[in-house]
Amino acid sequence: MREVAVIGIGQTKVDELWDKSLRELAGEAALAALHDAHLDRVDAVYVGNMMSGSANQQLHLGAYVADWIGMRYTEAFHTEAACSSGAAAFRTALMAVASGEVDTALAVGVEKMTDSPGDEITSQLATAADADWEANQGLSFVALNALIMRRYMYEFGWRKEDFAPFSINAHANAMQNPFARFHEPITAEIYAKAHMIADPINLMDASAIGDGAAAAILVPLDRVKAANGGRIVRVAGSGAATDTIAVDQRREPTWLKAAYESSKTAYIQAGITPKEIDLFELHDAFSIMAALSLEANGFAEKGKGPQLALDGEITIGGKIPIATRGGLKARGHPVGATGMYQIVEVVQQLRGEAVGTQVDKARIGMAQNIGGSGSNIITHILRI
Amino acid sequence: MREVAVIGIGQTKVDELWDKSLRELAGEAALAALHDAHLDRVDAVYVGNMMSGSANQQLHLGAYVADWIGMRYTEAFHTEAACSSGAAAFRTALMAVASGEVDTALAVGVEKMTDSPGDEITSQLATAADADWEANQGLSFVALNALIMRRYMYEFGWRKEDFAPFSINAHANAMQNPFARFHEPITAEIYAKAHMIADPINLMDASAIGDGAAAAILVPLDRVKAANGGRIVRVAGSGAATDTIAVDQRREPTWLKAAYESSKTAYIQAGITPKEIDLFELHDAFSIMAALSLEANGFAEKGKGPQLALDGEITIGGKIPIATRGGLKARGHPVGATGMYQIVEVVQQLRGEAVGTQVDKARIGMAQNIGGSGSNIITHILRI
Repeated sequence: MREVAVIGIGQTKVDELWDKSLRELAGEAALAALHDAHLDRVDAVYVGNMMSGSANQQLHLGAYVADWIGMRYTEAFHTEAACSSGAAAFRTALMAVASGEVDTALAVGVEKMTDSPGDEITSQLATAADADWEANQGLSFVALNALIMRRYMYEFGWRKEDFAPFSINAHANAMQNPFARFHEPITAEIYAKAHMIADPINLMDASAIGDGAAAAILVPLDRVKAANGGRIVRVAGSGAATDTIAVDQRREPTWLKAAYESSKTAYIQAGITPKEIDLFELHDAFSIMAALSLEANGFAEKGKGPQLALDGEITIGGKIPIATRGGLKARGHPVGATGMYQIVEVVQQLRGEAVGTQVDKARIGMAQNIGGSGSNIITHILRI
Repeated sequence: MREVAVIGIGQTKVDELWDKSLRELAGEAALAALHDAHLDRVDAVYVGNMMSGSANQQLHLGAYVADWIGMRYTEAFHTEAACSSGAAAFRTALMAVASGEVDTALAVGVEKMTDSPGDEITSQLATAADADWEANQGLSFVALNALIMRRYMYEFGWRKEDFAPFSINAHANAMQNPFARFHEPITAEIYAKAHMIADPINLMDASAIGDGAAAAILVPLDRVKAANGGRIVRVAGSGAATDTIAVDQRREPTWLKAAYESSKTAYIQAGITPKEIDLFELHDAFSIMAALSLEANGFAEKGKGPQLALDGEITIGGKIPIATRGGLKARGHPVGATGMYQIVEVVQQLRGEAVGTQVDKARIGMAQNIGGSGSNIITHILRI
């Protein structure tokens, strides 16, 4: 298996981008990544997206995006794994280059959600849950996460306000990220007074929908080593795992077993332990998911995730900085693009380009993208 | 790059399967393939599907299928490339095993189309076309293919009845395939009298929608070589290419450039020429696509595809047998499953299991899956 490097990144701002079409969004991020990589052509294009078929009446995003960015005749297809669709595109690109089938690959995640009314988007998001046993019972994603959070608070004795530091950290970091959706610092008081959406999840526990795209270029490591010398970002580990699609089928709804399995694979490939991770772009779609992710990936003991946040260890200077560019909560969560935003942000940190929220001497970063309520989890470890 | 073998296949009948859910269909094909491979576990599951998000209110098919077939915690995601979604799943599985990221992979294509009213399905199929420049102008897929066929007849002087042998051959072969949707032989007279859908495409030129699933198991070749000795089906070549998503953007709408590019890659990998192909499962969604596929892949000169059919060379005893188990026309075309049916059928031929339509001494077979109106074309060459 060939080792693989990431030599280019690109992203759009996450926002309500009504003046940009789906293809324009994907194109903007893809062309930025190509420019960053000093390439004008790739062998393959893999597009991560969840719900353009319903939200934009457009499927077939491989050909659609490749055509738009001038990559006619290249290989191209679309990967979907609900909110982990972006990481699925990156993993596909990784396997394509590692296998030798292609020499240069573009992975781009894109989602355009704000053209549809909010209630329609909620229904479309529910297609990531079990249609028969969850969605048809009226369970939305926020409702599923509320059930998990309530159970977690009951089992481990946390109060609602103990989750505030996750949102405060995300919003503080997003202040420094020009691509983030929100540039509004929040306080414990704002958190406490936020509208309740599905008790105990309030507006400050939940990531917002949005439009956006992010992209990366992957090539064999040996190809760039000769040209650049030392400081090359390479993929050190990659792991993917699933869990039951319906949450009620799990023995332990408060334990992200798929996160544990996927990061275990990635840690073994990279030959490291969680202690060596300098920053972790985790999937904080809801603050409960941030807590569970810290636990399942070995940064906190079971039931102790919120303590890390309360102790300030998730901030830029802490033991395990998370959401360093705002995370899903404040950078925004255009679902099929999120996994690629995480990769872009880890690359920024490893290159020392995370202006305003740079983690000191960052050498190893991890990105973890979650689809469904912990049903599909894809982890990547990048290092220089 | 590791060489890869196909050690198990499975399929459901293509039909209006109202008593089987989406997961039951995928499960039936997947478990049959596992049984055939004598495996009870794989490392990864890749699901090809086009439009379950709208037709079945279910996305996230990786976790959905893996969970259902008892493969909880494995890697799993969904690939989409319109009607070539099935081949995209197979290619992903191939790259996954070839790269060493996984040792055993299941590729399964599934589509459940008959739960939705016909006009809705036509709209959903149109999401494979360009939403802005084709679908929004009212162009359905049959209309796009009718424009291509009309242009082709004008350019090369063919009459409508010259396309009859494609459908007659497909229906004749399907008679021997218990998994085929249609078991009705047709004649030149039936073809001539068939209802016109979009002139010049009549009912006998067009494949029918349907429900179905097909699956295959991929492993490293060296793993089975030791166990089985000689007669192992291996993947000798794989190529993928795209063209413009909108047909009007092409210089030559009657030339499948993406087919030419993708099979060129596959031929080079396999180290063969078209002459060495013993059978070709091509993408006869419309009879014009069968003619264009024969030309772009080197079996007929430009503009001469129908002559091969008129000369009887596409039948089981001919120079290049096509649609040997009924093709899209008569086996049926559950869109995201079709590419996997093609793989299953090529494997049946190479194993000598194509009862009733066995190609004599078949050693090398090719499967080619087309998404959109020639926009996304994925080719695989299998051999023993």
